[in-house]
Amino acid sequence: MKPKLLLVECSDRPGLVHGITGVLLRHGCNVTTNHEFVDPEASRFFMRTEFTGEVTSGPLENEIRAVLPAEATVRVTPMQPRRVVVLASREHHCLADLLVRNAFSELNARIAAVASNHAGLGPLVEKFNVPYSCISHEGQTRQQHEEQLAGFIEKHAPEYLVLAKYMRILSPWFVRRFPNRIINIHHSFLPAFAGAKPYEQAFQRGVKVIGATAHFVTEELDQGPIIVQEVLPVDHTHTPRDLAQAGRDVEKIALARALRLVFEDRVMLCGNRTVIFD
Amino acid sequence: MKPKLLLVECSDRPGLVHGITGVLLRHGCNVTTNHEFVDPEASRFFMRTEFTGEVTSGPLENEIRAVLPAEATVRVTPMQPRRVVVLASREHHCLADLLVRNAFSELNARIAAVASNHAGLGPLVEKFNVPYSCISHEGQTRQQHEEQLAGFIEKHAPEYLVLAKYMRILSPWFVRRFPNRIINIHHSFLPAFAGAKPYEQAFQRGVKVIGATAHFVTEELDQGPIIVQEVLPVDHTHTPRDLAQAGRDVEKIALARALRLVFEDRVMLCGNRTVIFD
Amino acid sequence: MKPKLLLVECSDRPGLVHGITGVLLRHGCNVTTNHEFVDPEASRFFMRTEFTGEVTSGPLENEIRAVLPAEATVRVTPMQPRRVVVLASREHHCLADLLVRNAFSELNARIAAVASNHAGLGPLVEKFNVPYSCISHEGQTRQQHEEQLAGFIEKHAPEYLVLAKYMRILSPWFVRRFPNRIINIHHSFLPAFAGAKPYEQAFQRGVKVIGATAHFVTEELDQGPIIVQEVLPVDHTHTPRDLAQAGRDVEKIALARALRLVFEDRVMLCGNRTVIFD
Amino acid sequence: MKPKLLLVECSDRPGLVHGITGVLLRHGCNVTTNHEFVDPEASRFFMRTEFTGEVTSGPLENEIRAVLPAEATVRVTPMQPRRVVVLASREHHCLADLLVRNAFSELNARIAAVASNHAGLGPLVEKFNVPYSCISHEGQTRQQHEEQLAGFIEKHAPEYLVLAKYMRILSPWFVRRFPNRIINIHHSFLPAFAGAKPYEQAFQRGVKVIGATAHFVTEELDQGPIIVQEVLPVDHTHTPRDLAQAGRDVEKIALARALRLVFEDRVMLCGNRTVIFD
Repeated sequence: MKPKLLLVECSDRPGLVHGITGVLLRHGCNVTTNHEFVDPEASRFFMRTEFTGEVTSGPLENEIRAVLPAEATVRVTPMQPRRVVVLASREHHCLADLLVRNAFSELNARIAAVASNHAGLGPLVEKFNVPYSCISHEGQTRQQHEEQLAGFIEKHAPEYLVLAKYMRILSPWFVRRFPNRIINIHHSFLPAFAGAKPYEQAFQRGVKVIGATAHFVTEELDQGPIIVQEVLPVDHTHTPRDLAQAGRDVEKIALARALRLVFEDRVMLCGNRTVIFD
Repeated sequence: MKPKLLLVECSDRPGLVHGITGVLLRHGCNVTTNHEFVDPEASRFFMRTEFTGEVTSGPLENEIRAVLPAEATVRVTPMQPRRVVVLASREHHCLADLLVRNAFSELNARIAAVASNHAGLGPLVEKFNVPYSCISHEGQTRQQHEEQLAGFIEKHAPEYLVLAKYMRILSPWFVRRFPNRIINIHHSFLPAFAGAKPYEQAFQRGVKVIGATAHFVTEELDQGPIIVQEVLPVDHTHTPRDLAQAGRDVEKIALARALRLVFEDRVMLCGNRTVIFD
Repeated sequence: MKPKLLLVECSDRPGLVHGITGVLLRHGCNVTTNHEFVDPEASRFFMRTEFTGEVTSGPLENEIRAVLPAEATVRVTPMQPRRVVVLASREHHCLADLLVRNAFSELNARIAAVASNHAGLGPLVEKFNVPYSCISHEGQTRQQHEEQLAGFIEKHAPEYLVLAKYMRILSPWFVRRFPNRIINIHHSFLPAFAGAKPYEQAFQRGVKVIGATAHFVTEELDQGPIIVQEVLPVDHTHTPRDLAQAGRDVEKIALARALRLVFEDRVMLCGNRTVIFD
Repeated sequence: MKPKLLLVECSDRPGLVHGITGVLLRHGCNVTTNHEFVDPEASRFFMRTEFTGEVTSGPLENEIRAVLPAEATVRVTPMQPRRVVVLASREHHCLADLLVRNAFSELNARIAAVASNHAGLGPLVEKFNVPYSCISHEGQTRQQHEEQLAGFIEKHAPEYLVLAKYMRILSPWFVRRFPNRIINIHHSFLPAFAGAKPYEQAFQRGVKVIGATAHFVTEELDQGPIIVQEVLPVDHTHTPRDLAQAGRDVEKIALARALRLVFEDRVMLCGNRTVIFD
C-alpha cells in the first residue's frame, strides 16, 4: 500500500476534522501525519493528511466533499515524484543544483525537460541526459516566443514549472496557463532596490545581508505568494561581484528548500499568503 | 469564552483524531488550532488542540479518555500565564532577561519567586519587586540545601521551575519532585568538551560556533529532552572571554525561545525526545 | 599602560601603513591589533590600531598626520567606556536590554541619562538608578521640543546618542548637532513595506523572515549608513502580533550588536557605507 | 601586473608591519588589502597582504625574511587557481557540488583529478571530463591501498587534497605526505555522538540542529584545525533519513565555504587553531 496525500481547503466551520477523519476511518485508511491550520483573518481551513489504505482517489474525494462546505477544494494524490520542466537563461547555479539533485533522486521530482532562451547552458543539461531545447527570444515577439515555450512545456506535461533564473518576464496569459504551478527564485535585499544593477546598489548602500525569495508566479511581477526566504551575511569587504556570488549561493539554497516543500505538497495558498505544513 | 488547550498522548491506532474531535463537536467546542504527530518509531500519537467553548475541563477530559486507549494521557487546561519559580547562581544574563520579559508580560508566565545560592543577584531581583530568597549552600549538606530549596519553591507552588544558570547539580530525589517541570540552559560546543573551563578549551580548539541547549532536567545530568538549540558564529579573534560573552548571549536567546514553547504547552515528550508544536 | 586606539582615514596611496607604523615604532608603542581596508571604489584608506605605550594623544596625532595626505582624519583615543544618552518612546524592549547591559557592564558604555517623549517607561529607568526625564512633545512645536531635548542631552555631554525605539523623526538641524553620533534601530522586511502598519502588511504578504537594521542617523530618514542587519524566521502561523514580537526580539539583538561595534570604535564611515573592523 | 599574495607568520615583536611594508614600498609594490593578527596566547604574528608590483617572488621573500625573526615563515605567491585532487567514496553530494563549481569557475581552483575507493561515482565525474580513477581498497592492505592512492595523487601534483566524504581513515604517514594540505568535511552534532549510526543516535536524542565541520587533516582523527562550522535547524518530524539529508546539505555548504577560504590563502595555522582573514 503506497502512502497517499489528502489536501483540503475550505471556509472554516465546526466539525471539519471530525467529518473528514470519519470518511477516512470508514475506508480503513490509516492517517500517519496530519496538519491543519485555520487562517484567523480569512477564516479558512487547510488540511494536509498523509495516509495509507486501499482506496480509489476519485470516490474518496467525493465522499470527503460531501461532508464539507460546497466551495471546498479536495485533492487526493499519490505521494510520488512530481513531473517538472525547468526554464533557465544564462546563469547556471540553480539549474546545476537541480540537475545534480535530480540525478541522485534528492528532489522528489523528475525533471522532464529543460528549456533556456540562451544557448550557453545546453552542454550542462546534456551531461545529465535531460531533454533540452534552446528557445531563443531573439527575432520574435514576446507572444511568439512564449507560445513556442508553452508548446515545448506542454509537450512534457509537467505538474510544475521551475524558473531557475529565467530572466524574462512572463505574460499574464502564459502565467494563467500554469496557475499556481510556476515557482520562481529571485534575490532580495534589505532595503529593496528598484531599478537596474541591484548588487551595485546594494554595495553602495552597504547592506549587511543578502537574501533570496522563492515564490509562486502570479500575473503581478514578483508579488506572488512567498514560499521560502533565506539570507546570508555579507560585509564591507564584499565587492558588487562578491555580493552577486553570495546572491547566487543563497538563491540556490532557497530554491532547493522551496521545491522540496512544493513537491511534497506542503504548500497551500491562502489568498496571497502560503500556508506551509513542514 | 476563554480559549482552552487540549493535550493528548497515547499509543497510535486508527480513528483517534475522529474520536477526539467528535467529543469536542458534541460539546459545541470550536477548534481554532490543531496539531497532531505520530512518532514513527515509538508509534505514539500526540495532539495539541486550541479550542473555545463552554465546557468544564474534568468531564471533558473523561469523555475524551473514553474514546482513547486506556493508557492515554489527556489534559485540558486554560490558556493562561504559567506560574514559575526561577533559580540562579552568580550569572545575571538569563535571570535579567526573564525579569524584564516578566515585567512587560512578554513571557506567558508570572515569576512567582526567585532563589539563588549566591547573594549577588539579590539587588537585581528586588528592582523588579519579585519575591527573592538567597539560599546559600555553604555549611550545608546537599540534602539539607535542596530540602530548604524545595521548601521555598513549593511554598510558591510553581507549575515550572527554571534554572537560569543555576550552577549546582540537583539530586535525583529533587528532580523527581518536579517531573518534566524543570527547564535548564547550558552552553554547547561543536565538538563537545569534557572537564573544566570549556571556553578555554573551545578557544584552544578554535571552534567557529558557540551554542546553547535548553532542555528538561532529568536524573541523568544534561541528558534530558532537548527543547531548543541555538548557535552563534565566532572566530579566531574571540578570546576565551569573548567566547564566554557569546555563550551568554546565545544562552539568553535559547532559554527565552524554549520558555515560550513550554509555557504555551507546545512541548510534549516522546521518550527522551521532544515533540514541538510550533 | 592602558591600551589606546588609533583611527585613520584618508585617500589611498603607497606607503601609508609603513609611515604610520614608523611613527608608532619611534614612540615605542606596541601594536596589539591592526586592521586596514582600502575601499576599491572610493580609493580611500581606513585603519584601526590598538596599541599600548607611554604617549600623549595630541602630539602623536600630529606626527601621524605629518606622514599622511593633508585631508587625513586621525584620532587617538583611550579605550574606555563611551558616554551615552538614550532616547525612547513607548516600547520597552531595546531600552530594557540596554539598561540591564549597562548595569552589568556588558555594554562598553555608561548610560549617562535617558529621555522619553512618553511617560510610561519612567519606572523602568528609575529601577536602574539612571537619570531620567520625560520630555513630552505635546503642546509644543517640533522646534521647541527638539530644543528642549537637545538641551537635556547636551547637559549630559554624551559621545553617542542611541534611539532605542524613539518614534519621532528628528529635524536636520538636530541631526547635524550630533554628526555620525546618533544610532537608530528599525524593523526591516523582505520586501520593504511603505506606509502604516508594517506588521499587518507583512502578514498579508506572508513574509518568511523579519529583520532589523541598526544604522547611523543622517538627515535623510532611515537612509544612514547601515551598521548591523539581523533576521529571524517567521511563518504563516504568526499573527501580525506575533510578527511584532519577533520584530522586537530581532531589534534588540541587532541594536546590542551594533552598539558593541560602535562603542569599541570598530565602525568607520566611507560615504554612506560602513567599514566594520570586527 | 597580476596581483600577488604575501603570507607571513612569526613570533611577535614591535616593528614587524613597519619592516615588511618598508620592503614592499622600496619595490614600488602597491598594497591593496592587508590583514594582521597577533595571537594573544601564543604571541605569534600573522599577516596576509595582497599587492601588485613588478617583483620576483624569491628575492622579495628573502628581503622580507631579513627584517623578521629568524624562524619566520614567508611566502609570496601569485593569486591564481589552486591545483586540487579530490577523494570520494560513495556519497555524491560534496563531490557533485565541487564538480559543478569547478566547471563554472566558482572554486578558485582547478580539479586536476578525482579518485574514489568505490566505483559508483565514476559516471558523475566523467560527465565533467575530469580525470578519474577508482582505486578500490578491497583485497589490499591499508599500506598498499594508500600507496596506490598516493601514487595517483602525486602524479597530478596537487597543492591541496580534498576529502569529499572519503570514508576511510588515512594513516599518519599518508597525512604527513601532505602536511596541512588535506581538507576534510564531517557532520557534527550538539551533543557529539560516539560510535556507529550517528543520525540514528541524533534522532533518538532529539537534536534541534545538525552541523558540519570542515577541517585540516592531522594525524589525530578529526582533531585537526577547524576551518568552518555550519549548522541547519531540524525538528522532531525529521526521521533519521531526513537528518542524514540535512547533514548532506550542511556538509556541502560548509565544505564549499572552507575551500573558498583555503584556496584564496585566507587560512593560516596557529598551533591547532586557524586564523582566518576573510
